[in-house]
Amino acid sequence: MKIDGFSFAAVEAGVRYKDRLDIGLIYSESPCVTAGVFTTSLVKAAPVVIDIDRLKSDQAQAILVNSGCANACTGEEGMQAAYRTSALISEALDVDDTLVLLSSTGVIGEQLNLSAFEDNATALAKALQPEGFTQVADAILTTDTARKVAETQIELGGQKVKILGMAKGAGMIMPNMATMLSFIFTDANIEASALNKVLRLANERTFNRITVDGDTSTNDMVMVMANGLAGNGTISDENPSGDLNLFRQGLENVLKNLALQIVSDGEGASKTITIKVYGASTNEVAETIGRTVATSSLVKTAFFGEDANWGRILAAMGRAGVVFDPEKVDIYFGEIKLVDQGLGLDKKTEQAATAVLKEKSFEVGIDMNQGNGSAELYTCDFSIDYVKINSDYRS
Amino acid sequence: MKIDGFSFAAVEAGVRYKDRLDIGLIYSESPCVTAGVFTTSLVKAAPVVIDIDRLKSDQAQAILVNSGCANACTGEEGMQAAYRTSALISEALDVDDTLVLLSSTGVIGEQLNLSAFEDNATALAKALQPEGFTQVADAILTTDTARKVAETQIELGGQKVKILGMAKGAGMIMPNMATMLSFIFTDANIEASALNKVLRLANERTFNRITVDGDTSTNDMVMVMANGLAGNGTISDENPSGDLNLFRQGLENVLKNLALQIVSDGEGASKTITIKVYGASTNEVAETIGRTVATSSLVKTAFFGEDANWGRILAAMGRAGVVFDPEKVDIYFGEIKLVDQGLGLDKKTEQAATAVLKEKSFEVGIDMNQGNGSAELYTCDFSIDYVKINSDYRS
Repeated sequence: MKIDGFSFAAVEAGVRYKDRLDIGLIYSESPCVTAGVFTTSLVKAAPVVIDIDRLKSDQAQAILVNSGCANACTGEEGMQAAYRTSALISEALDVDDTLVLLSSTGVIGEQLNLSAFEDNATALAKALQPEGFTQVADAILTTDTARKVAETQIELGGQKVKILGMAKGAGMIMPNMATMLSFIFTDANIEASALNKVLRLANERTFNRITVDGDTSTNDMVMVMANGLAGNGTISDENPSGDLNLFRQGLENVLKNLALQIVSDGEGASKTITIKVYGASTNEVAETIGRTVATSSLVKTAFFGEDANWGRILAAMGRAGVVFDPEKVDIYFGEIKLVDQGLGLDKKTEQAATAVLKEKSFEVGIDMNQGNGSAELYTCDFSIDYVKINSDYRS
Repeated sequence: MKIDGFSFAAVEAGVRYKDRLDIGLIYSESPCVTAGVFTTSLVKAAPVVIDIDRLKSDQAQAILVNSGCANACTGEEGMQAAYRTSALISEALDVDDTLVLLSSTGVIGEQLNLSAFEDNATALAKALQPEGFTQVADAILTTDTARKVAETQIELGGQKVKILGMAKGAGMIMPNMATMLSFIFTDANIEASALNKVLRLANERTFNRITVDGDTSTNDMVMVMANGLAGNGTISDENPSGDLNLFRQGLENVLKNLALQIVSDGEGASKTITIKVYGASTNEVAETIGRTVATSSLVKTAFFGEDANWGRILAAMGRAGVVFDPEKVDIYFGEIKLVDQGLGLDKKTEQAATAVLKEKSFEVGIDMNQGNGSAELYTCDFSIDYVKINSDYRS
């Protein structure tokens, strides 16, 4: 996976663990129009605070990212450490400090191991190459069991435009207006306001619709860098053409692809489930209901047990805090209608629904039958391994 | 455990499982002033719907309760079945139908096994005895591993007043203005408006402050029956004396005792944790923060793993949706101050905090240092056994 104008490098720096890639560097030959969305948590990691500030300029040329340490809840010492890593990279790349973005993921509450950066900044800059994309995608992983990358190509005014992305995330996943780490690169020629707008739209319908465990991270971020090398006519927000929409769809495809990879690699997850709510009074009601079902521990353990326990779905809907008529609700597992107007169908139907639950990936359809609102949420099952992973994450 | 004027009986009726007590009957010699709080879920079980209606009179004389089947999401057939069980007991006891309250707990979405009630109504009425209290307390259990009962005695105007209670609940526990099943009996002489008021107050600070898994049930209820036999001067709401306060405290003690028994018997739980938030800007902020921490899967799995991972606590606080300054927050595990002004202390302190986590029961103190608001929440750890229990609950 390559894209014109961008180069990548990763090293085994020993930030926290030995013998694994844990610092990555991303570099663009020229400053890029860059947009980001960040965690809405009140507790923001040092790199998040710095990036939000630097992205006021809508410009960036490099991203320095590490795993092993979140640099969150680290106070002034953590801020200074983050600035120091930025200065190291700024010097190694001969790029203005304010064009370097920072990203960290890993354990919260521990200070950054600065020597890992000091020892490797120059080597990272020297190792930059167009083919290094997947190495960086590996360096950002923590409890993930698989690399998460996606790409698409669209045509804008006769010019081929690429969108390439990577992501990490397996636990502490319930993004809220932002998400875990994801970095997206495009050669599209696009104005900053347009890029910001389509990123927010696409993010809202993809990363913001997934949940693994209902916990939002302190370090969530999605950033898109656009270098304009594709040579398409500038995509503008003020003069919206079909191009803006095409680009948004392309971006949304990449984000959704990455979001689903995160859910299917959810800590301990054995299944990926799409919760599709429709016929709701409004889109907001549909989203609230879908989110409550997608986050319910009892629904998710029933999925793990391959138990077509639709009563837990209706119980979760009932506590969602929105008004609806439970006696109008139909529930489908895949193609199998299991609940009709709030009531369960016969044992034979339940057996057919149970067969759907044995799939690695399936859809739960919730037809509210009371309007036109809809929303799709993406979740995974809740397994014994989730508890195992999270009860000894730090040991 | 006995209380004047009340008698109890339970049978092995085979509602769902064989060879276990599963229908209980509670009877008062005379109609009682009775108050109840019920699930706020929009999806309410048939017995909940009936009780809410019947308690408009503030009067009841009997409670019929079963485990094995929740009679929730059962539609009109479930309502008719509930009314039928009430009629059976009304006849067997020669008590007006409207004075019989109903309660069910167990699997959602299955119809009630009516013959279990038809075959046993007369026998239940005949078996009533003052000593039957613990038998009924056993009959209401489902995934619980232990009977939950509590009692206290207070003195009001020279008269001894008893308050006796039982409860069930181990999963689907995040009561919201109501809770799992709990039945409380007192011989206090108290007006209905006063009883309703103190029940709401006491419930708000006890059952409404516990969580096992963040799921609210369709069948939650707490009901208090007061028969007045203690002969104390009538406790009134309109003319509040010290008695109202003494009675409220006695009731709150019994409810809190039962609530803590539920948390410590939480499905798969190995530890009981009190989350004490103080120094918050308001009580509401303290409660929201405490509830978010108490419900976080990542915090609860860290407790299971005996990992003093305070970063997950701060991360949960950050996503609670209320405004506060993370850099003022101190966190204590028991007596050990682990976090000072948002920053972790040294490794030696962390080791001392880890020793606290090895206890069966401990307190996490969160000093916000930004006001006088406070709240206590009660939770348990999140274990491998929780997932095991809930992935094959129905099989």
